[in-house]
Amino acid sequence: MSAFNRLLVTTLPLVPKPIVRRVASRYVAGETLEDAVRVIRTLNREGAMATVDVLGEEVSEREKALAAMEENLRVYETIAREKLDANVSVKPTLLGLKIDEDFCRDNIGRIAETAKEHGNFLRIDMEDKSTTDATLRIYRDLQARHGNVGCVLQAYMRRTLGDVDDLPAQGASVRLCKGIYIEPRQVAWKGYETVRANYVNALEKLILRGVYVGIATHDEYLACAASALIDKHGLKRDQYEFQMLLGVDDELRRILLAAGHRLRVYVPYGRDWYPYSMRRLRENPEVARHVLRAFLAGK
Amino acid sequence: MSAFNRLLVTTLPLVPKPIVRRVASRYVAGETLEDAVRVIRTLNREGAMATVDVLGEEVSEREKALAAMEENLRVYETIAREKLDANVSVKPTLLGLKIDEDFCRDNIGRIAETAKEHGNFLRIDMEDKSTTDATLRIYRDLQARHGNVGCVLQAYMRRTLGDVDDLPAQGASVRLCKGIYIEPRQVAWKGYETVRANYVNALEKLILRGVYVGIATHDEYLACAASALIDKHGLKRDQYEFQMLLGVDDELRRILLAAGHRLRVYVPYGRDWYPYSMRRLRENPEVARHVLRAFLAGK
Repeated sequence: MSAFNRLLVTTLPLVPKPIVRRVASRYVAGETLEDAVRVIRTLNREGAMATVDVLGEEVSEREKALAAMEENLRVYETIAREKLDANVSVKPTLLGLKIDEDFCRDNIGRIAETAKEHGNFLRIDMEDKSTTDATLRIYRDLQARHGNVGCVLQAYMRRTLGDVDDLPAQGASVRLCKGIYIEPRQVAWKGYETVRANYVNALEKLILRGVYVGIATHDEYLACAASALIDKHGLKRDQYEFQMLLGVDDELRRILLAAGHRLRVYVPYGRDWYPYSMRRLRENPEVARHVLRAFLAGK
Repeated sequence: MSAFNRLLVTTLPLVPKPIVRRVASRYVAGETLEDAVRVIRTLNREGAMATVDVLGEEVSEREKALAAMEENLRVYETIAREKLDANVSVKPTLLGLKIDEDFCRDNIGRIAETAKEHGNFLRIDMEDKSTTDATLRIYRDLQARHGNVGCVLQAYMRRTLGDVDDLPAQGASVRLCKGIYIEPRQVAWKGYETVRANYVNALEKLILRGVYVGIATHDEYLACAASALIDKHGLKRDQYEFQMLLGVDDELRRILLAAGHRLRVYVPYGRDWYPYSMRRLRENPEVARHVLRAFLAGK
């Protein structure tokens, strides 16, 4: 990261929320499930699939975690009723991981059951390093029990190639992303080229293990590297998917779809949009610069 | 290398030796074998192995080469007596390569014999292009005779993949480094990305040939690529080692050790520290900048 971008990222939290919100609104479908449904319908029409994310994380009260669980059940019912091509992603710390691991597993388990009743799938998101072990334990447990659960591995984590070895032998579904949380060098590879290289290493290892991979990236280099691996290993269209976030590089999305790949867009909604949006802005210095400019212009 | 760093490197030889020495002292254990023993004991306690290097190179007098040979015998005796986890690296031009190849081979051969008496190992360092053929001849001859000798290949040399083919079929031990001497384009790959890529190529070729590799690098990208190759080819902990230089990135050293890899630190000592230190400064513009700043501040 350049010194200027580092400064940008350091300054962002000082910007008043309404300004961040206006610029960051491109990353979020809206505050309600109905907003998400509208966005997904458009995406489905363009040939893209979706995964819905109820925004929120790091809850410390059981009531909030239970409410988030109920909201996720409502998402699956709505997807079924509205006949949307979509599944769901959940963040363990929204469902109580920081309160109690068993409580969190029960909550995510309830969501996985509901998903199963609708013949649908549940992806458990990966958060920062304090959650990795517990999240993978919950994933392995629920996947063994229900068979319709997937997880996420982050290419910047030094442990990731080892984590591939611990995936279930059959039917594993993994989203592979670079990782966006700020992690110390002890646990995470540093350097843009290094993380890219490890993404390619991990992707090939997942493919060789027969894992269904959600190739989550907006990096043109990785889109190219992944296309080459798909070609090299002769993957069929239904043996992988690309994944992108709402509001990031719609052009690449259309290009990948036009090339015949399947692609899923991450569609977050809800009132707790701030931490998610700040991570997006950190990833995208261009947009962050826009936020700061609006702030400095007093708009 | 940036224009500024090139200027830096060009200017370094103008800095008075005492100033260079103060800043470069981090790269050298001290002037005496006792200094080296102290450093190695600390490294061993941290779980790192060592390789001792008697500083000096390019000698043109037989007496100096013979004295260096004797000093190396003393190193093996000291390692054994002090029960250190360490072996030895020698530079052919310190042991008379520029005087006469047979003379040099005899000297290194005496050191290899002493190493063998102590059940220890000898690594023959690689220097600039004028020494490559002779050094590999001496290595092959002594390894055939004693079986406890290793060599070094440099990823920046265009010939390196070919040199892998000429290694002994059994029991070869190779340190792979990028290479730090200034070589013309005719013999060396140029460009940071190119040398990195050829390092990965050479490392995989060595692994596929069943060679024991000393993965000598401080480049996070190569540490990551090497970890992936170790994982891909299922190498056991005793089938390779990482190698790093004293005074360079102690944090990476601790990270690699904590990840369960074996790691050896290159520990040079002696009064002839100047050319070695200048190569280290050339590798590390940050430290070189520090040297020049001290010089310009008149300290």
